[in-house]
Amino acid sequence: MELADAIRKRRSIRRFKQLQVPEKLIHTLIDAARMAPCAGNMQILRFVSVTEKSLVLSVFHETFWAAQVKPHRTPVAEVTAPVAFIAVVAPDDASAILHADAGAAIQNILLCAADNVLGSCWIGAFNKDKVDALLDLPAGMKVLYLVALGFPYESPVMENIEEGDSTKYYLDDKDVLHVPKYTVEALTTWK
Amino acid sequence: MELADAIRKRRSIRRFKQLQVPEKLIHTLIDAARMAPCAGNMQILRFVSVTEKSLVLSVFHETFWAAQVKPHRTPVAEVTAPVAFIAVVAPDDASAILHADAGAAIQNILLCAADNVLGSCWIGAFNKDKVDALLDLPAGMKVLYLVALGFPYESPVMENIEEGDSTKYYLDDKDVLHVPKYTVEALTTWK
Repeated sequence: MELADAIRKRRSIRRFKQLQVPEKLIHTLIDAARMAPCAGNMQILRFVSVTEKSLVLSVFHETFWAAQVKPHRTPVAEVTAPVAFIAVVAPDDASAILHADAGAAIQNILLCAADNVLGSCWIGAFNKDKVDALLDLPAGMKVLYLVALGFPYESPVMENIEEGDSTKYYLDDKDVLHVPKYTVEALTTWK
Repeated sequence: MELADAIRKRRSIRRFKQLQVPEKLIHTLIDAARMAPCAGNMQILRFVSVTEKSLVLSVFHETFWAAQVKPHRTPVAEVTAPVAFIAVVAPDDASAILHADAGAAIQNILLCAADNVLGSCWIGAFNKDKVDALLDLPAGMKVLYLVALGFPYESPVMENIEEGDSTKYYLDDKDVLHVPKYTVEALTTWK
């Protein structure tokens, strides 16, 4: 897919088909993640690919979803839930800059997922200690973010908004998720 | 350009041709940035496009570059320096999660730059108070990161390394910058 299409078409997906994601495809996503830039090229982040069914389910039960349209975009286990996760792992004392590194690496994962007809959702809200324990992380490491994965079972749409408009996403009467995004003009000063 | 090519070919650029970057192209980059996901879809980040020559130079003088190969990849004003910047702006009390949002938005900018034959370098090291003052930011806002822009005047190369190898980037005897990146195998646990 053309880069511009991947950037435009990628949306967070919260309803997934119950089809397995091949580990080879997750390898492709992490290959994209590792090529993102990072502070001082230090490459402190690590990744855990989770595809084993019962572990995916256990991790899923510790995640929180789309507060603004609750419960309509809270996936249901074995019906619309993600079928895999990538956990982005960092040292306990992760700096703000390491969060920025994670953002860049995750964006590559999300774009690469869209390019492979895969749905994804970047998750920051989860029971941290429980997920760390489930993934049996080495001492001194923690899960910074999760990326939920699966083939998409919804098609959210983006719409443009201007300065002052609400950024709240919403479901229409056909159960389509609308995601308002500020225009370039609303966000930018030119000097 | 295909997404996979943009991800693979994008490298941080620190030597730029002294050709102007059209404001229209910067609009395209910020259009990519705004489409990145962000926590709660809140869209707190703002952007300042800097193309006015004397302001670009003033901002450039407050930036720090590539410590590991200093001074060989410290651009020289009016010779190899960037010709534009995008400043990513946030509230003074920016959370770690907002840094992650910035990382995702910046990654879209960097990929979109590569797609438009433009070089870019994400900069986290700069004199923060001075750059804030130069850009005349509204009260309570600060520059979180800078992205330096210009048409590239170098061609860095990526190479694969295994666990335990040094991540230090280096110049070879032909003045080509080499950027070591861990393989997927070195970074990933499979569960």
